[in-house]
Amino acid sequence: MKVINDLLGYKNLKIVQDTDWFSFSLDSVLLPNFVTLNKNVKKILDIGTGNAPIPLILSTKTDAEIYGIEIQKEVYEMARETIELNSLESKIKLINDDVNEIDKYFKPETFDVILSNPPYFKLNGKSKLNEVNTKAIARHEISLTLDQLLTVSSKLLKNKGKFAMVHRVDRLTEILSLMKERNIEPKRIKFIFPKENTTSNLFLVEGVKNANSGIKTINYIIVHTENGKYTEEVMKCFE
Amino acid sequence: MKVINDLLGYKNLKIVQDTDWFSFSLDSVLLPNFVTLNKNVKKILDIGTGNAPIPLILSTKTDAEIYGIEIQKEVYEMARETIELNSLESKIKLINDDVNEIDKYFKPETFDVILSNPPYFKLNGKSKLNEVNTKAIARHEISLTLDQLLTVSSKLLKNKGKFAMVHRVDRLTEILSLMKERNIEPKRIKFIFPKENTTSNLFLVEGVKNANSGIKTINYIIVHTENGKYTEEVMKCFE
Repeated sequence: MKVINDLLGYKNLKIVQDTDWFSFSLDSVLLPNFVTLNKNVKKILDIGTGNAPIPLILSTKTDAEIYGIEIQKEVYEMARETIELNSLESKIKLINDDVNEIDKYFKPETFDVILSNPPYFKLNGKSKLNEVNTKAIARHEISLTLDQLLTVSSKLLKNKGKFAMVHRVDRLTEILSLMKERNIEPKRIKFIFPKENTTSNLFLVEGVKNANSGIKTINYIIVHTENGKYTEEVMKCFE
Repeated sequence: MKVINDLLGYKNLKIVQDTDWFSFSLDSVLLPNFVTLNKNVKKILDIGTGNAPIPLILSTKTDAEIYGIEIQKEVYEMARETIELNSLESKIKLINDDVNEIDKYFKPETFDVILSNPPYFKLNGKSKLNEVNTKAIARHEISLTLDQLLTVSSKLLKNKGKFAMVHRVDRLTEILSLMKERNIEPKRIKFIFPKENTTSNLFLVEGVKNANSGIKTINYIIVHTENGKYTEEVMKCFE
């Protein structure tokens, strides 16, 4: 069922969702709150933008031009409706295409910041693909592998441009290695814990193109309090 | 000055130290409390054992045979005195040699568990080497590089044997990649935070030889409370 929701605490922003097969998650709220933004950031790209929660939140934090690319037509249409609903057409531009075709739209070294909340799961014989194809593409590496994502991002980032992503901790080793191989040096990591005294399931990572090697900052965020409410730190993301 | 100290809260254990140039640190207490031990663990090796705090603590937790190798003669002598002082000669065996010579003592695939609190700093033109050579060797990769440590450990570990290490977070990317390359798959990480609301400076990592890829568990430990005392979780390491 297609519905129009408030973007959680972002009271003035509305987001179009289909509750059957595509809702944005907290990951998409934490990521734009994690990435380093400053006045020199003029162009931002969100790869696999879905129904555009990340561009929407970024629009409250920066005056940069924000681009989002989404391969799935029906998801892209929701994103387009979302942008119109919020009258953000001048600030957020959407592209409905495969990320591997992005050369048609942008020259190398175009972006100051690239973000992605990519498909989390590798595709292999064992993968139980979600029956709804739209959801499967968003969750599994069908249209976009990690290597493709990092290769494209490295190409499109300016020198010293920043790449930020949210992903599952079980793939940490692979992700840090591959970022480094693609000349995006991991510099900051924030581990996401569902509750205190649990183990981390997801992490936010920011890398800098052509930076010196070595991680600078590691910290963590706890999502829920003992009684299941969002913690203060998460609530701050909605202020 | 050479002194004999209690091994912190391990009230029945004494440790010989030279306060001018070699004292064990909390890292050496956290590591043997982090590594996975069970009844099947029969042989353990501590690489770069220093004055043997890690074998000493392990001796309270396992009936396995524990070996420690230390390159520096004068540090080895302190370790030897420490072991005698605690009457642990039957349980802890010490070797005074270069780790790269370890083939003389052990066959490949000998150990169930290998631990190391290795030198933290890379040696390069910029390194300000500590004037006291003994301390420099313990802190800088003079006698033992990370690659040598992992290559030797991979060779000496049994199939599915465990390797555990404490190291600086700035080298996380390099360490996880290199462990994987040496067939020691990183499975568990615990980040060490000096205080709440700081960033992590050190981490504990455990890898398993020839294991499937993918990290299973990430969590953290906070060392000090607001008023500078050890937290409950750290105090538990001394119980």
